[in-house]
Amino acid sequence: MLSSRIGILGGGQLGLMLLQAAVDWNLDIHVLDPDAEAPCRFIAPHFQQGSLQDFDTVYAFGKDLDIITIEIEKVNVDALEALEKLGKRVFPQPSVIRKIQDKRIQKQFFRDHFLPTADFILTETKADVALHLDFLPAFHKLGRDGYDGRGVQRISSGADLEKAFDAPGLLETAVPFEKEIAVIVGRNARGEMKTFPVVEMVFHPEHNLVDYLFAPALLDETVRLEAESIALRTAEAFGIVGVLAVEMFVRPGGEVLINEVAPRPHNSGHHTIRANATSQYEQHWRAILGLPLGSTEQFEPSAMVNLLGEDGHTGPAHYEGMESLLATAKVYPFLYGKATTRPFRKMGHVTILDQNTDDLKDKAEFVKKSIRVISQA
Amino acid sequence: MLSSRIGILGGGQLGLMLLQAAVDWNLDIHVLDPDAEAPCRFIAPHFQQGSLQDFDTVYAFGKDLDIITIEIEKVNVDALEALEKLGKRVFPQPSVIRKIQDKRIQKQFFRDHFLPTADFILTETKADVALHLDFLPAFHKLGRDGYDGRGVQRISSGADLEKAFDAPGLLETAVPFEKEIAVIVGRNARGEMKTFPVVEMVFHPEHNLVDYLFAPALLDETVRLEAESIALRTAEAFGIVGVLAVEMFVRPGGEVLINEVAPRPHNSGHHTIRANATSQYEQHWRAILGLPLGSTEQFEPSAMVNLLGEDGHTGPAHYEGMESLLATAKVYPFLYGKATTRPFRKMGHVTILDQNTDDLKDKAEFVKKSIRVISQA
Repeated sequence: MLSSRIGILGGGQLGLMLLQAAVDWNLDIHVLDPDAEAPCRFIAPHFQQGSLQDFDTVYAFGKDLDIITIEIEKVNVDALEALEKLGKRVFPQPSVIRKIQDKRIQKQFFRDHFLPTADFILTETKADVALHLDFLPAFHKLGRDGYDGRGVQRISSGADLEKAFDAPGLLETAVPFEKEIAVIVGRNARGEMKTFPVVEMVFHPEHNLVDYLFAPALLDETVRLEAESIALRTAEAFGIVGVLAVEMFVRPGGEVLINEVAPRPHNSGHHTIRANATSQYEQHWRAILGLPLGSTEQFEPSAMVNLLGEDGHTGPAHYEGMESLLATAKVYPFLYGKATTRPFRKMGHVTILDQNTDDLKDKAEFVKKSIRVISQA
Repeated sequence: MLSSRIGILGGGQLGLMLLQAAVDWNLDIHVLDPDAEAPCRFIAPHFQQGSLQDFDTVYAFGKDLDIITIEIEKVNVDALEALEKLGKRVFPQPSVIRKIQDKRIQKQFFRDHFLPTADFILTETKADVALHLDFLPAFHKLGRDGYDGRGVQRISSGADLEKAFDAPGLLETAVPFEKEIAVIVGRNARGEMKTFPVVEMVFHPEHNLVDYLFAPALLDETVRLEAESIALRTAEAFGIVGVLAVEMFVRPGGEVLINEVAPRPHNSGHHTIRANATSQYEQHWRAILGLPLGSTEQFEPSAMVNLLGEDGHTGPAHYEGMESLLATAKVYPFLYGKATTRPFRKMGHVTILDQNTDDLKDKAEFVKKSIRVISQA
């Protein structure tokens, strides 16, 4: 199984960390990405430039491989289904990617499987949204192709209607919540499942990207168990083979609702490389290669800070402040090798470990102040 | 500094682990190795086949790079000195490699710097050895090119004289010892130094390779401090920039003697990838890139088992028993990706972590019994 020819659709930072983990087992990996400058370009044993959304390109890429996986959902699922019919092992399964690719199908899937999620109404056009003023305040979400905070608009009242998308979407009740959390689950073909400890995400108020993350989340035990249980039930309902990231809200009072899921390694699991006995990336390999899952034990409390391109800076990336980070014990910058920075572009992240939770938060604040991704002067 | 063009002389397993660590910082790495099938061949951003011992090849490889390092000592030091004169940063420094490359110069260096080591006599020929029967029992060591147990012969008495090398070497008193230990030291150009916790090596009685390793070593506190102090003094005496592995003997009574040193990441530090806050590979990058050294804190007791090619097996490598290893928590196989196995060839290693030292030793024994590197049936 370790000698399989493996393909990854997507050569971004998640692919890069999958490749790094794959070095341990000397896996033979082929990467497809539309960008000749993708983060994986130098490290991938085999790198091919090409569209992830073109049937012929994806099919041609996969037809001489044994196992195909993804690091991004926006891929041609028809091609993956055709590869599956050829006898290729495609994990996560195309049927799972198809359900998750479209937020409308994803939400309906939660409802159909009694997985708790905020109430919603499917909408086809902007005019449709206007018919549901009684459902506001709500979030209007694009069915397809939204990511990283794009494709979501808050519609507080009728006055915001012009912000709604004029495309198939869903209107989701704006649920007041206390915390946003995530659980990554690994599941292999035998149905073995393991959760990583719950992480807590802190969002930046302005650009709606994860600002930093703490793991394990500080939660009541009952809430923690509920979150883990929901994550396991969700992975089981999809029958996914691979890792599944389940993002959830914790409401005042402790109710836990699913926000959305991702059928791949996730931004909320980068810290597992340093903090846990098995990283989410190694767990993904284990799951899709049909191997036993690894221990998800966490050695120390951990924080993760995203390195976003500084506002007002576009051009060749320069990392200011790396040395002071590296002078601090157990602070681990990880750079994605993207040639150019743009405002709020994900350029890297920093994992931080500390036995003491207060010291951990102090270190996270220090990291946020110390490093900036700017364009070269 | 992180955008430097970096070269590694040697593309074996140590180079592979250096490359894996370098992914975090997106380092631009070029690898030179004589073997087109070297472990680094697929992962290196730039891989070039060529001799490490040919002046022109090494010089041409290094002349367009900024920083040059090694993963093996057997390289053309004249070329490295010429590159240094060109203004390249070459770490470890050529002068250090030159002293360590030849065991005779290395031993004399210890003596000159009052670094404790077993008594020795330099010899030029086999006939020379016969003049020192009163010095037996002793080990006869080749000055150059011995490695992994080769280039060393035990001469117990005059009857063993035919085993002596007919080449420049040294005769070293056979010192009875209780333990063989190693300390890896990182040292950067500012003279900052950090030691990794002492490791204890257990040798296989037959083929004289490390059988397994425990870290931290179980030692009296005074012996531990003495070992760390010797390692630091040795790194300081050489003035090395990079990591230095210092192998030592502990004699009955606690005296610590240096056996030999290696000016690069070392087999006795593989476990630091999983067990320590900073791996020896990352520490090497920090040291040679002029960055602050990382914390060497160890999270849990660790063992490391070498995966050697099974006796009687030569041919395409097959790893038998991987799945049972991977089913055990905190057991981490690392395969070097060498195409063919040979008896006792280093094909990989397994790192093992456990809070409990007894359980750790049990797991190490389990690992040794569970996995075999054989040629494909």
